[in-house]
Amino acid sequence: MSRSKAKSSTFHPPVRTLMGPGPSDVSPRVLAASARPTIGHLDPLFVELMDDVKGLLQYAFQTENELTIPLSAPGSAGMEAAFVNLVECSDKVIVCQNGVFGGRMKENVERCGATAVMVMDRWGDPVDPEKLEAAIKEHPDAKVVAFVHAETSTGVRSDAETLCRLAKDAGMLVIVDAVTSLAGIELKADEWGADVVYSGTQKCLSGLPGISPITFSNDAVAAIHARKHKVQSWFLDMNLIMGYWGEGAKRSYHHTAPVNAVYALHEALLMLEEEGLDASFARHKANHLKLAAGLSKLGLEMAVAEEWRLPQLNSVLIPEGLDDALIRGRLLNEFDLEIGAGLGELAGKQWRIGLMGTSSNTVNMNRCLTAFEAVLA
Amino acid sequence: MSRSKAKSSTFHPPVRTLMGPGPSDVSPRVLAASARPTIGHLDPLFVELMDDVKGLLQYAFQTENELTIPLSAPGSAGMEAAFVNLVECSDKVIVCQNGVFGGRMKENVERCGATAVMVMDRWGDPVDPEKLEAAIKEHPDAKVVAFVHAETSTGVRSDAETLCRLAKDAGMLVIVDAVTSLAGIELKADEWGADVVYSGTQKCLSGLPGISPITFSNDAVAAIHARKHKVQSWFLDMNLIMGYWGEGAKRSYHHTAPVNAVYALHEALLMLEEEGLDASFARHKANHLKLAAGLSKLGLEMAVAEEWRLPQLNSVLIPEGLDDALIRGRLLNEFDLEIGAGLGELAGKQWRIGLMGTSSNTVNMNRCLTAFEAVLA
Repeated sequence: MSRSKAKSSTFHPPVRTLMGPGPSDVSPRVLAASARPTIGHLDPLFVELMDDVKGLLQYAFQTENELTIPLSAPGSAGMEAAFVNLVECSDKVIVCQNGVFGGRMKENVERCGATAVMVMDRWGDPVDPEKLEAAIKEHPDAKVVAFVHAETSTGVRSDAETLCRLAKDAGMLVIVDAVTSLAGIELKADEWGADVVYSGTQKCLSGLPGISPITFSNDAVAAIHARKHKVQSWFLDMNLIMGYWGEGAKRSYHHTAPVNAVYALHEALLMLEEEGLDASFARHKANHLKLAAGLSKLGLEMAVAEEWRLPQLNSVLIPEGLDDALIRGRLLNEFDLEIGAGLGELAGKQWRIGLMGTSSNTVNMNRCLTAFEAVLA
Repeated sequence: MSRSKAKSSTFHPPVRTLMGPGPSDVSPRVLAASARPTIGHLDPLFVELMDDVKGLLQYAFQTENELTIPLSAPGSAGMEAAFVNLVECSDKVIVCQNGVFGGRMKENVERCGATAVMVMDRWGDPVDPEKLEAAIKEHPDAKVVAFVHAETSTGVRSDAETLCRLAKDAGMLVIVDAVTSLAGIELKADEWGADVVYSGTQKCLSGLPGISPITFSNDAVAAIHARKHKVQSWFLDMNLIMGYWGEGAKRSYHHTAPVNAVYALHEALLMLEEEGLDASFARHKANHLKLAAGLSKLGLEMAVAEEWRLPQLNSVLIPEGLDDALIRGRLLNEFDLEIGAGLGELAGKQWRIGLMGTSSNTVNMNRCLTAFEAVLA
């Protein structure tokens, strides 16, 4: 059986400016790292690299959690790993939803056979701590509280520190989705008391897409050890993954790590360490302020109240009468500029302009503003 | 919080010759493809590439199955995707085990809450069709039969064509683990009637590690549509992934594909198409025969009966009195040559020498023989 379609050839992608909700621009340094020769995933030198990646991730998450690793799958698998490891079928989980990804958390809870108690906020608003407090009072038997720190669907930050405190004060475990927040805005896993925090490599880290950094507190590990039933996912069972990412000498085979993507993540994390977290946050903030001011001059209105805007993901209202797909198509085809469409109920109503990681720089910001000026003229 | 350890620097891997059980050597063509600029996973040009990858995978699997895609996670996630989509908690699955990976299949069945009926064969022997036939007669209510085509832990091929026929004659669905077989030995998904076949990119395809090609027959898709309960994994739910990898215009967001790893897979699949499947099989076979003859001259004995040996993965008995780890360490440190240790109950008893994909060539074969000659002297 041969292929029916015409033969294809090597793919040569265009050089886009990536200002959507991820992936963000990947630095040539990171691309070069990813293209170095593949070595075995159990090679002693790769095991050393794994240890170094763990240390760099601890810095990024601001944690001393020993179980801090890059999962060999995208952020949505990171979310699933958080839930399937902490949650059992008889458990109750309080899920705060103010966008697409809170809804995905609900799906995860229910697919564990557990009960999700929903705390709902309008898409575009942060999670309301008072509503969470009331839900905790009403459901003192809940085991876990889960929320999204930076909602990728709306561009909204929630007050993770306060939400974590409310859950910890009630003796509950906390799962924090930091897919879009890690390295873009302040995130202090240990100081805030988060028990599981997961992220993605393709947002403010600007590694290659495909890996999910994740960290588990000692309380989370204890909860995993105290489970009555096996984790329903073999691939994401942290009992097994701990053996693979454990201390050097005891490393035991579980799956084959995405070796070259780990090279890329390592290099991206080195770049973060060189710049420093605070400098990275300040850069994201400064470019965001300039972009927002420029968009405002063009007559475009931000969708989120100033206090809760994510500097790394700018949600903009699409003005009445403009053709969403046409504008995005022109930006892509005439300027090699990718911005994001609205997601879920915001499709056609908002654009999402990312300034994440490597993408957050003056040149991109200027390119975006001049391109918008041209296509809106 | 800064890092306590000394600052680290860019990782420069050595250039190893990868003759273990995977990853195999990655061609410079594939590494170059992976390092091209990242574009968005919903970019129209990436969507075109996804379609091309699907077509090339259909060729590799020898199938016309529409649902033929690269899953965004390693082969062990491919295995999990096969089971969690086909199997529900009330189901019975016949699992043939003759090595590590049949045991992992049992784990997957049980984590779905289903019952695994085991057909056991000695590690190092192929699956015995007569035993499967007897199990099918004894359990006519089983929904699925599952087996490993090429056992990576033992280097043994099983007669996939016969095993598939037995299952299909009984009206059961068949799951085939082709992680190590795809592109290395004959595999005809459609002709043999396999319903789900999954593989990995880091074996005989010599793409970058981290992706699992998988194909579902129309019967498998019908079984997924007929499920009574939701798939327990959100990340691996084919109902959702079908929307992401579906026809171009209807593409809907599910997760972020590992864009650059897909570039690499595309290039690796182009190389396979250029060579042709039959030529690839013949190359694997020829290099295997020369390696086996050379090892025999050195006094090393193959672990598997000739008829069932995998040309891409050569299991060798470790001679009495030799220090397994010391020999492998010398091969690695003095020759940059990686071979595989024994896995599970074969640890310390066998070596696994891979001649997979790009690694299957005359130079590697000669390097391996001369290096063994030196360290065994």
